[in-house]
Amino acid sequence: MHTAHTYAQQHCDRFIEELCAFLRIPSVGTAPAYRQSTLQAAQFLKECFVKAGADQVRCIQTKGYPLVYAEKRVGEHLPTVLVYGHYDVQPADPYDLWDAPPFEPCLRDGKIYARGASDDKGQVYMHVKALEAMVATRALPCNLKFLIEGEEEDGSASLMNFLAQPENQRLLQCDVVLISDTALISLDQPSVTVGLRGISYAEVEVVGPARDLHSGAYGGIVQNPIHALSHMIDALHDAQGRITIPGFYNDVQPISEQEKHETAQEVFDQEAQRRALDIPAWYGESGYNLTERLGWRPSLDVNGIWGGYTAEGSKTVLPSRAFAKVSMRLVPNQQAKHVARAFSKYLCDLAPTGVRVRVRMLHEGENAVVVPSDMVGLRAACKAFEQVWHKTPSLTRCGGSIPVVSRFSQCLQRDIVLMGFALNSDNVHAPNEHFHVASFHKGLETVLCFYEQLAKQHSTSNLV
Amino acid sequence: MHTAHTYAQQHCDRFIEELCAFLRIPSVGTAPAYRQSTLQAAQFLKECFVKAGADQVRCIQTKGYPLVYAEKRVGEHLPTVLVYGHYDVQPADPYDLWDAPPFEPCLRDGKIYARGASDDKGQVYMHVKALEAMVATRALPCNLKFLIEGEEEDGSASLMNFLAQPENQRLLQCDVVLISDTALISLDQPSVTVGLRGISYAEVEVVGPARDLHSGAYGGIVQNPIHALSHMIDALHDAQGRITIPGFYNDVQPISEQEKHETAQEVFDQEAQRRALDIPAWYGESGYNLTERLGWRPSLDVNGIWGGYTAEGSKTVLPSRAFAKVSMRLVPNQQAKHVARAFSKYLCDLAPTGVRVRVRMLHEGENAVVVPSDMVGLRAACKAFEQVWHKTPSLTRCGGSIPVVSRFSQCLQRDIVLMGFALNSDNVHAPNEHFHVASFHKGLETVLCFYEQLAKQHSTSNLV
Repeated sequence: MHTAHTYAQQHCDRFIEELCAFLRIPSVGTAPAYRQSTLQAAQFLKECFVKAGADQVRCIQTKGYPLVYAEKRVGEHLPTVLVYGHYDVQPADPYDLWDAPPFEPCLRDGKIYARGASDDKGQVYMHVKALEAMVATRALPCNLKFLIEGEEEDGSASLMNFLAQPENQRLLQCDVVLISDTALISLDQPSVTVGLRGISYAEVEVVGPARDLHSGAYGGIVQNPIHALSHMIDALHDAQGRITIPGFYNDVQPISEQEKHETAQEVFDQEAQRRALDIPAWYGESGYNLTERLGWRPSLDVNGIWGGYTAEGSKTVLPSRAFAKVSMRLVPNQQAKHVARAFSKYLCDLAPTGVRVRVRMLHEGENAVVVPSDMVGLRAACKAFEQVWHKTPSLTRCGGSIPVVSRFSQCLQRDIVLMGFALNSDNVHAPNEHFHVASFHKGLETVLCFYEQLAKQHSTSNLV
Repeated sequence: MHTAHTYAQQHCDRFIEELCAFLRIPSVGTAPAYRQSTLQAAQFLKECFVKAGADQVRCIQTKGYPLVYAEKRVGEHLPTVLVYGHYDVQPADPYDLWDAPPFEPCLRDGKIYARGASDDKGQVYMHVKALEAMVATRALPCNLKFLIEGEEEDGSASLMNFLAQPENQRLLQCDVVLISDTALISLDQPSVTVGLRGISYAEVEVVGPARDLHSGAYGGIVQNPIHALSHMIDALHDAQGRITIPGFYNDVQPISEQEKHETAQEVFDQEAQRRALDIPAWYGESGYNLTERLGWRPSLDVNGIWGGYTAEGSKTVLPSRAFAKVSMRLVPNQQAKHVARAFSKYLCDLAPTGVRVRVRMLHEGENAVVVPSDMVGLRAACKAFEQVWHKTPSLTRCGGSIPVVSRFSQCLQRDIVLMGFALNSDNVHAPNEHFHVASFHKGLETVLCFYEQLAKQHSTSNLV
């Protein structure tokens, strides 16, 4: 007799082939040019759920991209898991740094290369195939709901609105929210993410003269917006790598002695990673180690900058404007909205004479999330990892953000399990993104075990 | 009987129509995509000289774009003028800020709008038509040679090589070099330029991690190349607006009491200009007025900056690289090559931990030029202006650079006359570049008078 596990093993090659078809759809939700293909990805996913045997499959229309919903109920006495993921992907540029086109997936050295392979289409598809395996073998230990959105890379506005409605909260009622959009420490050392940083994202425009000027005729008498912007960016950090926005650290909690003890354990090989990144040295806030800087301390990064002449050759222009995109990663207890306001005000204060500054929040932001370590879902996840990986997973805080997670926790008031199977070396948000085929298969196996563990814990707790 | 002056007046509309055909050729020499059309502009210009009645007309091939040469000799006893100009133009981007396409010239409010209208195709064409007027009316007071290049906006490398050869120096032998590539104070206040700043131009690359990184997963532990570049750019000026490159001001000459007296006269309406540029305030080095900052003091401007994600929407990337284009304007006695070396070294010294820096000089540069006020050519120019504009021209120093001017002065050892008819408000190097039709016609008239004045002074000095 087939179990879901043997079914998954027997169909593993087909699963990867089908995933490639999903990855071929360039669902860059943030780029208007890819609107049609992002919609197409939602449609494709809907059909995948139907084929996998889900019920109530539908695209829920929103002001932005549709939410793909599916479910499979097996019994009211069983626990219900809501699986969340996203079908939109980051822009693929710069294209010339990809070894192969980003939307023509290719298998190389046990990895699938494509934009979205790891973040998050590969992980979403793994959940679709786990469902297929359980339905095909009539082995569903839990009730399952799926909610896959198309705006995660753009702040999840439509999903946020959806979650705010009581009738939708009823639809999504569950015991545990399961999210696979985070990373393992390595293929040898599994981990469950128990903390995510929050995020605020702004675009800054520095406005100088009404038109581009000749840098000979005006150089030295008109403030150059690029100089002004550089000054402002440089002023955002002090020499100790601390962010200088007034009040920025007011709500940041100190690291406890217990946490300090834990973060002192090196969870990844820093020297090997430094060499792989080809950087002369690590960087960061004085007084904190790398783990603390990523998980416990906020950060601020300019994600893009542009102004003046940027093509080949030379042009002697003193440009009219300069621009930057700036994101901040926030830690527990920081309020994203307060931070966004303080940032905007500070940028305007920093502007030197001779220019004007406009700050536009692209996402006002989301707060950080920390998962308490005594949760039922977290225990089930740890047990599932032990079964499949034969190792106790580390509990880690991730430097990244999944904007909707804090909202799930507020609106549904349920346990959240961040059980992701990416690797930090997967080049997510970068050229040559890839997902290990082994991550897909072991991840699928772990997800099946997670449902079994959760059902077991549920029945035990019902007995008590 | 027609004089050259009445001929020019009668054909003035045709001249402008023909100029438009010249402006339609997008001769952006620095952009590889415009190579063919830049070559076409040279060919077009060659034919214009033939039609105007010049002799020895030819395109002199170089490693870059050809030099267009033409001449008209009338008598060995007469003075010889070498007219220099350029047929290449600055890139036209950003295109979306033009009111009409940059290579489809249009006449509006007495101005011709097109890239190159003022800098320098309009002024070159004015010289072609001055020649036509003199040949057609058999009224040539001087021998004329024309040398029009196609790499002025890119550092004039081919012309520099050409000038270094003794046989070419013989070909170009003359009494005066006449250049129309500078600006008047206004249409009410003519001026002759007696000083040009030199220039050095570099591209800076800041190299961080080997690939673009996720700004959540690495934000706060990897030095961001945009932050590093911003720090370096900000450090290039101090709070007084002085450039901080070690030794940068060592060779800069102090402003004499006599010069201070002259520069204290306001030559343009600063408040009106400030409003026209829509800037909250002027900017610059403490202790110097605007005229001094432009003519007597060096400057440094970032002409372009780019790195990370610059398209619409948001992308949470910590980029692998960041770039800037930087030019310096130099004043008399500064050595461009020394400055370029000091700049490169300083930039590398400024780089913070965690990144590497590469500096590539796009143009090592040219020194500044100052024209002595007792020159025969300058006297003839002033008299010509008085005849046509009924005002004594001011003698001004221009903040811009014409790289080849210092080389002309070294190689030919002849007087240089900088008699340009642009206006600072012509938007050269910027969107909506234009040239006043009045500037074209009055400029042509002034050029005819200049030749007559030069011949008169020459015969007088021969009599002595």
